[in-house]
Amino acid sequence: MPLRTADDYRAALVDGRSLYYQGAAVADINQVPDLRVAVDHAALDYELAEDPRHRDLAVAVDLETGAEHSAYYKIPRSPDDLLDRCRLIDLGTATGGTVVTLIHEIGTDALFALLRILEGEGLERAEAFYRHCRDNDLAVAVAQTDVKGDRSKPPHAQDDPDLYVHIVDQNDEGIVVRGAKCHTTSSANADEIIVLPTRAMGEDDLDYAVAFAVPVATEGLSLYVSGYGGGDSNAFEQPVSSKHKLLETLTVFDDVFVPWDRVFLCRDAEAAGRLALTFVEYHRFTAVSYKLPLLDAFIGGAALIAEMNGVARAGHIRDKLSHLVAYGEGVRALTEAAAIRGRIGEHGIAYPDPMTTNMAKFTFATGFFQAVEWLQDCAGGLLVTGPSGADWENPEIRAVLEKYFKGAVDAESRLKVMNLISDLTAQDLGGYHAVLAVHAEGSIEAEKMQMLRAFTANGGAERALTYTRRIAGLDE
Amino acid sequence: MPLRTADDYRAALVDGRSLYYQGAAVADINQVPDLRVAVDHAALDYELAEDPRHRDLAVAVDLETGAEHSAYYKIPRSPDDLLDRCRLIDLGTATGGTVVTLIHEIGTDALFALLRILEGEGLERAEAFYRHCRDNDLAVAVAQTDVKGDRSKPPHAQDDPDLYVHIVDQNDEGIVVRGAKCHTTSSANADEIIVLPTRAMGEDDLDYAVAFAVPVATEGLSLYVSGYGGGDSNAFEQPVSSKHKLLETLTVFDDVFVPWDRVFLCRDAEAAGRLALTFVEYHRFTAVSYKLPLLDAFIGGAALIAEMNGVARAGHIRDKLSHLVAYGEGVRALTEAAAIRGRIGEHGIAYPDPMTTNMAKFTFATGFFQAVEWLQDCAGGLLVTGPSGADWENPEIRAVLEKYFKGAVDAESRLKVMNLISDLTAQDLGGYHAVLAVHAEGSIEAEKMQMLRAFTANGGAERALTYTRRIAGLDE
Amino acid sequence: MPLRTADDYRAALVDGRSLYYQGAAVADINQVPDLRVAVDHAALDYELAEDPRHRDLAVAVDLETGAEHSAYYKIPRSPDDLLDRCRLIDLGTATGGTVVTLIHEIGTDALFALLRILEGEGLERAEAFYRHCRDNDLAVAVAQTDVKGDRSKPPHAQDDPDLYVHIVDQNDEGIVVRGAKCHTTSSANADEIIVLPTRAMGEDDLDYAVAFAVPVATEGLSLYVSGYGGGDSNAFEQPVSSKHKLLETLTVFDDVFVPWDRVFLCRDAEAAGRLALTFVEYHRFTAVSYKLPLLDAFIGGAALIAEMNGVARAGHIRDKLSHLVAYGEGVRALTEAAAIRGRIGEHGIAYPDPMTTNMAKFTFATGFFQAVEWLQDCAGGLLVTGPSGADWENPEIRAVLEKYFKGAVDAESRLKVMNLISDLTAQDLGGYHAVLAVHAEGSIEAEKMQMLRAFTANGGAERALTYTRRIAGLDE
Amino acid sequence: MPLRTADDYRAALVDGRSLYYQGAAVADINQVPDLRVAVDHAALDYELAEDPRHRDLAVAVDLETGAEHSAYYKIPRSPDDLLDRCRLIDLGTATGGTVVTLIHEIGTDALFALLRILEGEGLERAEAFYRHCRDNDLAVAVAQTDVKGDRSKPPHAQDDPDLYVHIVDQNDEGIVVRGAKCHTTSSANADEIIVLPTRAMGEDDLDYAVAFAVPVATEGLSLYVSGYGGGDSNAFEQPVSSKHKLLETLTVFDDVFVPWDRVFLCRDAEAAGRLALTFVEYHRFTAVSYKLPLLDAFIGGAALIAEMNGVARAGHIRDKLSHLVAYGEGVRALTEAAAIRGRIGEHGIAYPDPMTTNMAKFTFATGFFQAVEWLQDCAGGLLVTGPSGADWENPEIRAVLEKYFKGAVDAESRLKVMNLISDLTAQDLGGYHAVLAVHAEGSIEAEKMQMLRAFTANGGAERALTYTRRIAGLDE
Repeated sequence: MPLRTADDYRAALVDGRSLYYQGAAVADINQVPDLRVAVDHAALDYELAEDPRHRDLAVAVDLETGAEHSAYYKIPRSPDDLLDRCRLIDLGTATGGTVVTLIHEIGTDALFALLRILEGEGLERAEAFYRHCRDNDLAVAVAQTDVKGDRSKPPHAQDDPDLYVHIVDQNDEGIVVRGAKCHTTSSANADEIIVLPTRAMGEDDLDYAVAFAVPVATEGLSLYVSGYGGGDSNAFEQPVSSKHKLLETLTVFDDVFVPWDRVFLCRDAEAAGRLALTFVEYHRFTAVSYKLPLLDAFIGGAALIAEMNGVARAGHIRDKLSHLVAYGEGVRALTEAAAIRGRIGEHGIAYPDPMTTNMAKFTFATGFFQAVEWLQDCAGGLLVTGPSGADWENPEIRAVLEKYFKGAVDAESRLKVMNLISDLTAQDLGGYHAVLAVHAEGSIEAEKMQMLRAFTANGGAERALTYTRRIAGLDE
Repeated sequence: MPLRTADDYRAALVDGRSLYYQGAAVADINQVPDLRVAVDHAALDYELAEDPRHRDLAVAVDLETGAEHSAYYKIPRSPDDLLDRCRLIDLGTATGGTVVTLIHEIGTDALFALLRILEGEGLERAEAFYRHCRDNDLAVAVAQTDVKGDRSKPPHAQDDPDLYVHIVDQNDEGIVVRGAKCHTTSSANADEIIVLPTRAMGEDDLDYAVAFAVPVATEGLSLYVSGYGGGDSNAFEQPVSSKHKLLETLTVFDDVFVPWDRVFLCRDAEAAGRLALTFVEYHRFTAVSYKLPLLDAFIGGAALIAEMNGVARAGHIRDKLSHLVAYGEGVRALTEAAAIRGRIGEHGIAYPDPMTTNMAKFTFATGFFQAVEWLQDCAGGLLVTGPSGADWENPEIRAVLEKYFKGAVDAESRLKVMNLISDLTAQDLGGYHAVLAVHAEGSIEAEKMQMLRAFTANGGAERALTYTRRIAGLDE
Repeated sequence: MPLRTADDYRAALVDGRSLYYQGAAVADINQVPDLRVAVDHAALDYELAEDPRHRDLAVAVDLETGAEHSAYYKIPRSPDDLLDRCRLIDLGTATGGTVVTLIHEIGTDALFALLRILEGEGLERAEAFYRHCRDNDLAVAVAQTDVKGDRSKPPHAQDDPDLYVHIVDQNDEGIVVRGAKCHTTSSANADEIIVLPTRAMGEDDLDYAVAFAVPVATEGLSLYVSGYGGGDSNAFEQPVSSKHKLLETLTVFDDVFVPWDRVFLCRDAEAAGRLALTFVEYHRFTAVSYKLPLLDAFIGGAALIAEMNGVARAGHIRDKLSHLVAYGEGVRALTEAAAIRGRIGEHGIAYPDPMTTNMAKFTFATGFFQAVEWLQDCAGGLLVTGPSGADWENPEIRAVLEKYFKGAVDAESRLKVMNLISDLTAQDLGGYHAVLAVHAEGSIEAEKMQMLRAFTANGGAERALTYTRRIAGLDE
Repeated sequence: MPLRTADDYRAALVDGRSLYYQGAAVADINQVPDLRVAVDHAALDYELAEDPRHRDLAVAVDLETGAEHSAYYKIPRSPDDLLDRCRLIDLGTATGGTVVTLIHEIGTDALFALLRILEGEGLERAEAFYRHCRDNDLAVAVAQTDVKGDRSKPPHAQDDPDLYVHIVDQNDEGIVVRGAKCHTTSSANADEIIVLPTRAMGEDDLDYAVAFAVPVATEGLSLYVSGYGGGDSNAFEQPVSSKHKLLETLTVFDDVFVPWDRVFLCRDAEAAGRLALTFVEYHRFTAVSYKLPLLDAFIGGAALIAEMNGVARAGHIRDKLSHLVAYGEGVRALTEAAAIRGRIGEHGIAYPDPMTTNMAKFTFATGFFQAVEWLQDCAGGLLVTGPSGADWENPEIRAVLEKYFKGAVDAESRLKVMNLISDLTAQDLGGYHAVLAVHAEGSIEAEKMQMLRAFTANGGAERALTYTRRIAGLDE
């Protein structure tokens, strides 16, 4: 089956799915301007695969059948495969103006985790589902984070048992699930949703240890799209977010039936934890891969606007630039190192080194806010006091703006870079990037915990302790 | 003359001023929803003065005439007066939901600077203008920052001489000025604008060493209101910024005539520098005073949402809270100390201690982004993935949201706090607060420079050097 | 009774106390060079009191009797008294070359805490002991920190019950105590030791809830002086530590009998906690007061050595200087604010504001290591590669050094400042200052916890929460 | 010629060199205890080469002759060679208890730079000298940093022309040089010294553009060993520095004659700059390689002492451990990446990627002081208040110490780890490590500058700017 076109993708989204936006049901996602932006953004993945310049990276060939498929679906078997995956995600996100497309990355992160962790029947079902997605060139979202209620209590101890997605019934045909997931990215414009447990489950929470996949257009499944970042936008004021956007949903399972061939994990508490963690490790590697264009834009934005303001040679500006370079290139080097240090896991599937992946993500996340400050410092107050697109469209007003907003270059160039920086750091997309830095693909606290675990698992802790004991003379 | 009411204030703004917004001329500022929000916000100053609970702080009595006037106009004569001014600004900003009103603070900052720096005829004119503003209870903006063009060049060396406001003509009646200022806050909804030089001027830039005041509705003066933060807002999604807003303008002087009695400084390069600096020192004290409600909201927001999420007892949350408290209360303590260490300057006018004021501002500015991270960390990803106001208004959808967004409290309370934090840190108001932290009232670099200067001026440098020489044995 | 002279003080230390240093018993502390340095250092307190330039600050007059006594013993009754105490500690420490004398500060911190917390008989005993110390102009140490064993267990659950000092017997005459305290500063050269509980005690640890005082020369009490920082020193290489030093002991109570009139607290678990905390709050204020000369030396050292190296005008040097000034003056401002915000506690005794005291200490502690880096960066590698005092004493070698170590000034001046900085940051005294920053007078973690508590206790938490609830619309 | 033994190395140092220590001339370095420690430390390099466990890493075979030589002399031809070199330096330093041996590393850093930068006759001489050092298994030091005088002036503008090493005469036989270098590590215990220019030279400083090598025992060459870190040490109190030590000298060239075959660069200002830079880039890679054992000891030390104190499970301890792991493993990952990204330079000699090398060094240097704080925080105040070795040797006192200094383990183990941490961070070796972090192998400021240069040189700047221009719409 050939790869789908962008229009194939768009058309398939009109399938009767239960979708809500701004307080109303949505019949055709392509007809709602805010949502259409996200669909067109995601469609870039399909356009890239058709672009001769990028086919090598974006399209893979199945060695058994010779059939072409999206390279996102290529199961990594080596560090080089992981590097290629990093480059593909980098490319897709760069094309998306620093916004990841996320209709293939996250789905394959989940699929690779399923294919590694599962055994037996579960594995067969996951393999079949993997082929289904790959061969039909599908867009796949992942719902992992439960709404969680009171975070001090485990799933079964919540006032309402539905605050984590759980099995409420089962029969020969399949299972019935209820509950809700939040922060589900791209589900509104995906074909399929994979549902994973949010964390390891205890013995009292067996009904919550469940993983499965359903088409978005499934009875009982409703998606409530967040209004964040919606509303009118303008190509002058928001050069990126007027064209690139992700949709986030509250994803509600109201007694959704899942046939057995779509149930990957059922009441296996131990595997639930490993699955959750394995997915997150792949997904963190995806994360640092898709941060690279944003980091380049921070460095490039700071350098460009400083030049345009006429301050590029000031000592404190060069100081900030050197810090931004150290930050951005540091994340890049660690991301590459995570791939190069990649290992071969269960069933011969490669995965990026967990220690290095978490260091890359942690370095990104903990440095992000300071980087925003440096970038905004290089730019100036005009980030939040500049003219509107409508001002710029009015020729009389534009003449005034052109006269007075010139710097070491013409006003138009300077305002374009200023607006880019404003879009990336000081408006809704900026807020989205910032909150993602702190919370997406695991919080900073989760990354710290994982680094400690990985440092023990990879022998680093043993090495450091043994060495310290030796030079302290403990073993004499 | 009695104090004006909020409606008096609103009505006076419809005076034929040349105002542009979103590409179009504005006839009545009160009729444009985005702008009306700012007018109503600023009008809080007038409402506070009428509120019996706050009269003591908000209304002062002229000792000579017994007339009441806004306490913002009270010339500080002692540290206690400075403390009262701090409290008044804190109160006004708290009422404004963390957004300063800035129709009195900045104007009086400029007036105090003029009354201190000027002598002779200039001083008499400034005194007359001060009484005019005070006795008519006027709203006063200040235009200081020139558009500046290429920042590596002084005013006269710019390609276009108008990139700093300058005198282009003068006669017996007055002077004619041309050029533009940017980042002029509240000018669109003020009665008068005071224009100050942006910095010390060299001998080649004498025409740029000019300070004056004009009514906003003056021929040749045009205000272009920034579109930033405009557009539809919603009381659910933006609990603060839907009600509180500042307007920023590009303020263009196209051969504006200024009569001599409104010209305070004319081609005095040396005084221009002192005036610029003196204004900024008052204004930095205003700045740290008006940051206090925002700091309280950061601490309170983090504590509340952590409690509502059920994570208040987690070690890392308590760690972040303790850091937020140290940050917020540190700025508060330094702000108070700046007042308590206040000194008496020229003409018996008190001013906050420059070293301490700059330390307070520097502490605020350099800690702000990290504080945002801590706050967002306590809150969660829902900051940018939550439901819209329209969702909340729809009873069927609200039922779903109420079920699934509850935490350790009901969903409505939790979403309200979440949306507050989102408004303050992850949407346009958040971007505005952040860029202001870096750039408003002087940049971080300017604060560093001023601290070094103040440390020398106040004898601290001499003390430290003498002591160090002594214990190094240098003077033996 | 008149104030003692420095020689009186020295002579009184030869009293048969059980003192050990470098593996041997010490008969006369004044005869052991390493220890003599500490005695002479502490004696500065007595010399200051005789110095006409400092009598106003260093000597107080008892209002009842008219007798003079060391001003350290003046019970603070107002913020001004606290400010004076801060100045006295600052002066003493400055005289001590950045090393606090600590034979009066800590003892009076403990006495003030006892006089505030105790009631009834305990209070009467404490008052009598206070008068004894004051009227005899004694040097008083405080032993608070128990050796603690396994920190994960409370006192009674330790393998060895003696790991916290506890009551092992009692009769009509008094109590018998056993156990050990560590980090006991200045005990070796003090007249008396006050023993306080290290923390709040539970009901199972009643025997550990004990406070008392004994002369250092008491049967069963042995002091083991740490060897840290001992050995040969040299006035050229260690301009400060060759003359100024503190002694730290392991303080062992081997069935020490304490008569009832020296027992202040006995098996009162609740008061033990309050006493421990109250002492620490006074002691933290002492701490930030005695850090001020060190902070001045950091700023002055960085400025002087940069000038001497010929790099004072480099942008990055000015950046570091501005940060050092912000740091040092920030701690100073908060310390003053802690006094100015001082409150009146039990029995009319004033105490510095706990929130502000902890902020000052926290600001000092968390900024210290970065400050060392900035200072060392300004100085250069010569901090650890410079010539020895013996080199300098050899005329032929000195000629070479004078030729080659000159900077923008002569070599001698430059090396003196270099050696001062090395002594303060890169040798044993530097290590001592650093570890004290992290651990002395309570750890950084303890300061965080106290800030949260103080913020609740002083109404700040209520203010922030109420305000946040209001602007979030929670109470509508 | 076979590899030398450690004793061969020691014996060869007694060669009549002009060496001064503690104000006196040294006839035999092996007879002065302080210096002997350094010789024995350096001799570890020779012992390692004889150790069967390490021969693979420590000994290389010349492909042309089949002769064995120290692997330090192996000219890197590939990333793998660079990785091996990193491992060898790591091994040598680990054996040296976190102290690099530096009798081979720095010399070969200089040799590789000479072999890459030179051409023609200069190159031939460098090759001959390289073979001389390699085939005779010599210890080689490098003198690069001039004493510099007033750093605001170039060499020729100094009051004394000798403040940078320069050519004062030349004839058919060779050149005569005068001046002094400082911070010359290991020169006192090396066989040969390579002298490199400290930086690029201008046309007025041609006499200063000189590179050459001389035996340490050369007429006119005098070494003045720094007294830093000397004096009595104790294996209990200083488990590392009592056995491992580097010597730093002021290295004075008093009209030293250098024959032409030892002159590599003579009055070539342009090549001087490239040579200085190329050496530093190799040397920074050496630096990050030799930091790895210290980083392991920081992590291991923090983990061990926390366990021994009984606080390993405390949240804030785990937080600090995770930060230490992120720091140490981050430097390690970047160091490896610098090798893996290594390139082939002039004459086929490989070099580590400059951008990544500088990032590794910058990450190390800017994180070091915070890491020390975390480590000391985990350990406790006992770092500077603990017992002396003499105390420990006295059986009666030891019994007391064993009783009272036990933690969750026996006192001896705990004190050994405590003393290790004290040695590494709070005594002279700690100060040495810290100052080295800031200044050795180039300062932090130099690393920032190099990162900006490398980012431009490697195309990163172009990539970031192009991408930013694209998404800003600048090229539309």
